[in-house]
Amino acid sequence: MGISPKQFAELQRRVASPRRSDEPDPGATARPAVAPVRVILGIDPSLRGTGWGVLSSERPHPRAVAYGTIRCPASWERSRCLMRIAEVLGDVLRDHPAEVCAIEGLFYAQNLQTALIMGEARGAALATIAAAGLPIYEIPPAKVKLAIVGHGGAQKSAVAKMVQRLTHLTEIPDPDAADALAIALAYVGESGRFSTSPPRRV
Amino acid sequence: MGISPKQFAELQRRVASPRRSDEPDPGATARPAVAPVRVILGIDPSLRGTGWGVLSSERPHPRAVAYGTIRCPASWERSRCLMRIAEVLGDVLRDHPAEVCAIEGLFYAQNLQTALIMGEARGAALATIAAAGLPIYEIPPAKVKLAIVGHGGAQKSAVAKMVQRLTHLTEIPDPDAADALAIALAYVGESGRFSTSPPRRV
Repeated sequence: MGISPKQFAELQRRVASPRRSDEPDPGATARPAVAPVRVILGIDPSLRGTGWGVLSSERPHPRAVAYGTIRCPASWERSRCLMRIAEVLGDVLRDHPAEVCAIEGLFYAQNLQTALIMGEARGAALATIAAAGLPIYEIPPAKVKLAIVGHGGAQKSAVAKMVQRLTHLTEIPDPDAADALAIALAYVGESGRFSTSPPRRV
Repeated sequence: MGISPKQFAELQRRVASPRRSDEPDPGATARPAVAPVRVILGIDPSLRGTGWGVLSSERPHPRAVAYGTIRCPASWERSRCLMRIAEVLGDVLRDHPAEVCAIEGLFYAQNLQTALIMGEARGAALATIAAAGLPIYEIPPAKVKLAIVGHGGAQKSAVAKMVQRLTHLTEIPDPDAADALAIALAYVGESGRFSTSPPRRV
């Protein structure tokens, strides 16, 4: 069971890329995209505030099963934060078995030190998720914003509001959790269709 | 029980910094260095070849209890490598309970992407080691080479040979494992003495 045609159309409408979904893209390859799945764990790792969200691709609209932010105070040593990220994500997957994980791919970092620290947070998260047996896919950040808000430069607050709308949540999730749910929503939108840049397994 | 005075002097002789150990350094702070410990896990994480080494600071010379390299073929997805790094280091710590972990600190990376991938390997390693309850300390890479070979620009093969000499191993460890043992040796040399840049807990 995949996502409903209605959801699919809705997500596709939000893709404001030069290519329209009803026009064949001459640059598109014919390789099949990733098969649709039902329960997706989206993650947005960072040392002090890792967002996570479990999304179920249900009818009539995708449902945010659970979501949150793993907060690590500035007073904590880096290794304690990494341990905490691994621990919480392990708990999340025990409580909400997901079939696949989606994470942002290549991203912007201000400098090597920032990239290293962001990488450490990602490594702690990915090792745990891989150990739980989930395949992990990367989606470029701009593509996530495109899929959810309609343009690649969207602000965090705009993403959070659209995540609320798309999943019919009664509250706006906090920005990090919203980003994680947005990644999962983008994965649902990307999977099961042809794409020039399908989610890449990592 | 710490390292022997003889070992201590030997390691100190190899420090070719402008500051001599028998001359007070006007820039040195008076804060106490890290307390000496007996069993140290040194690690040199990278996605495809993470070196590790368990060092015991015994008399008459430090002993390499166990060491190795976690190899991940280029065909493996990144997440599989990260899972493997976490898994093997978990096994190592079960087989060889260490009291403290030493890792290289700030390092050179060619670009953001490289830093991110190295960071991921470090994150998988550090989360596992922190979960095992070990405090983790960073030592600058140049300081490791200084402590082992006598100058900061030493080649990997020179480090491996000195590691063999210092630990009286019958074979030269492979370069990644040797780097990990070098980090552990440098930690032993640094701990228990006053320093302008003692190993930093992370």
